[in-house]
Amino acid sequence: MLGVNELKLFASIRIKKFRDEKGIFLVEGMKQVEEGILSRRKCELIVFRTEDGDNFDEVLALARHKGIRCEAVKNREFEKLADTVHAQGILGYFRMPEKEILDRTSTPLIYLDRINDPGNMGTIIRTADWFGFRQILLSPGCVDVYNPKVVRAAMGSNFRMAFHEGVTELDLKGICESGYSIVTTELDGKNLEDFKPMGKIIIVLSNESHGVLPGLASIADVRIKIPGEKGAESLNVAVAAGIIFHKLFETGSKK
Amino acid sequence: MLGVNELKLFASIRIKKFRDEKGIFLVEGMKQVEEGILSRRKCELIVFRTEDGDNFDEVLALARHKGIRCEAVKNREFEKLADTVHAQGILGYFRMPEKEILDRTSTPLIYLDRINDPGNMGTIIRTADWFGFRQILLSPGCVDVYNPKVVRAAMGSNFRMAFHEGVTELDLKGICESGYSIVTTELDGKNLEDFKPMGKIIIVLSNESHGVLPGLASIADVRIKIPGEKGAESLNVAVAAGIIFHKLFETGSKK
Repeated sequence: MLGVNELKLFASIRIKKFRDEKGIFLVEGMKQVEEGILSRRKCELIVFRTEDGDNFDEVLALARHKGIRCEAVKNREFEKLADTVHAQGILGYFRMPEKEILDRTSTPLIYLDRINDPGNMGTIIRTADWFGFRQILLSPGCVDVYNPKVVRAAMGSNFRMAFHEGVTELDLKGICESGYSIVTTELDGKNLEDFKPMGKIIIVLSNESHGVLPGLASIADVRIKIPGEKGAESLNVAVAAGIIFHKLFETGSKK
Repeated sequence: MLGVNELKLFASIRIKKFRDEKGIFLVEGMKQVEEGILSRRKCELIVFRTEDGDNFDEVLALARHKGIRCEAVKNREFEKLADTVHAQGILGYFRMPEKEILDRTSTPLIYLDRINDPGNMGTIIRTADWFGFRQILLSPGCVDVYNPKVVRAAMGSNFRMAFHEGVTELDLKGICESGYSIVTTELDGKNLEDFKPMGKIIIVLSNESHGVLPGLASIADVRIKIPGEKGAESLNVAVAAGIIFHKLFETGSKK
């Protein structure tokens, strides 16, 4: 059973301030909760809606086997905890990882420049995971990667990713001293087809409305664009990420 | 001024049944309304929030120049009409095109198989537009392309696209008689890198949760997959679309 105070505490996790304070984030849905249990993240609590309990037999058995606390709650309480209206009936609360050390030997690194749409952020994480990229750097002004909407769109991929938040242009310059060159995506860059990635690179993906941060544009080593025909003014940033990640994967530039 | 009955009529356009009945769809935001005015679609009405009127001087002048009716409304009325909570303060009502004739000489054709997420649908339309594809076939069970959420994610690209709705597997077989081969995306298909598109093709993009419709899978001529590493179980369908469209664009298979 969840006490009133616990209920209040876990309901507050949907808000960044309390998430950061407690170091805990929320995951919704059976598949994602299961991925979390099987990941290296610590699960603090699983909550499920009493009437849906039968649907979760397997994942609850797995959780209990791992010594994870599982609690059934009434629908009224579940609704206070869930972020989605049509939640599946199961929630997991996981501990955020300690600040991870950036592996400065791996390439490419992904740098997200003020990506503030949760759906785009989650989809980029999922896409990076598909292509086996394991480290994402985030500029100030990015949406919180533990925002429930981001976690939902990431479809469990957040459990396999190391995030480095609050990375400024200055930090990026410092990282470049480990031998990275910076690749930005700009409408007047060179064609992606003609881009032959060499050595270690940091791929910058910028907010669609704001473009590349001026300070970043000025330190870019290569500027690329995805060719297209006269039509849409821009590509969705998660789609652009997919096309670029695929190109890097295909040319074997991942190490 | 909008009368009470008109207000009711235009507010109902957010619902598919009334949209289809009246043959009118809703577009939100200044840029998209402007794209609509400049497109070959007929604009029936523009509505803006009185207090935001100054922001829209240019687009309103353009509309009036074209003889389009423009009406200012109070915030309370605007909220009844808009689909988004944080709408920009301007809405356009456009006439849906007459049923268009499929151009059976152009390639590739895009076939969407039960894509029901509005954001994904809109992003696919936007991405197809970026790469210059002009025709999209939709299976039964796809979300309505004139759903306001789809229109929003399409960012104006819907104005440059011909949609063919309710295309069944049987219809697709008929279209193949004009010399098309069917390409599906499946997890056990051949690597996209090894796919050399020849002749006229129909690219099938399927719902992520349901996979390719069995009847469709059985008539596919080529099955492709986007290679990745052990990680995410699947790619978002709009991201997959972007990677495939880019490949087709890059290999010059567009005609």
